[in-house]
Amino acid sequence: MKRIDYRKKLGLLLRKLREDRSISQEAFADKFGINRTYYGKVERGENSISLDKLQSISRSLKLPLSELFKQAEEI
Amino acid sequence: MKRIDYRKKLGLLLRKLREDRSISQEAFADKFGINRTYYGKVERGENSISLDKLQSISRSLKLPLSELFKQAEEI
Repeated sequence: MKRIDYRKKLGLLLRKLREDRSISQEAFADKFGINRTYYGKVERGENSISLDKLQSISRSLKLPLSELFKQAEEI
Repeated sequence: MKRIDYRKKLGLLLRKLREDRSISQEAFADKFGINRTYYGKVERGENSISLDKLQSISRSLKLPLSELFKQAEEI
């Protein structure tokens, strides 16, 4: 299995999903119920997001984590 | 989408994968390079594991996170 940088790939995917919706980082963070500064760091791959926050994103986007990570791995 | 309790499901999956290998929590934690107490809590759904630690588990088990979560969702 190729080594995958999940921080980086997840950040790129979230940015893509956000830009597809033409909304700001702040609005996306609010939608997820996540602190805006924290969310900005996730998008830049600067922090190691927790499972609880991943679950919030998954529910909000209506994408199971298996699917979210599948899309991230393909980036 | 049904609400999924990822802490609980991931914990059950990790316990199952560990028991399939007939090894102790301590040995599994060491294999992942994760603190043993922390790992015990993950298995019991008592903490919100970070993405970096999920990545360590994924690499060690040679299972992409998409696949790990797919298996967890099916539990």
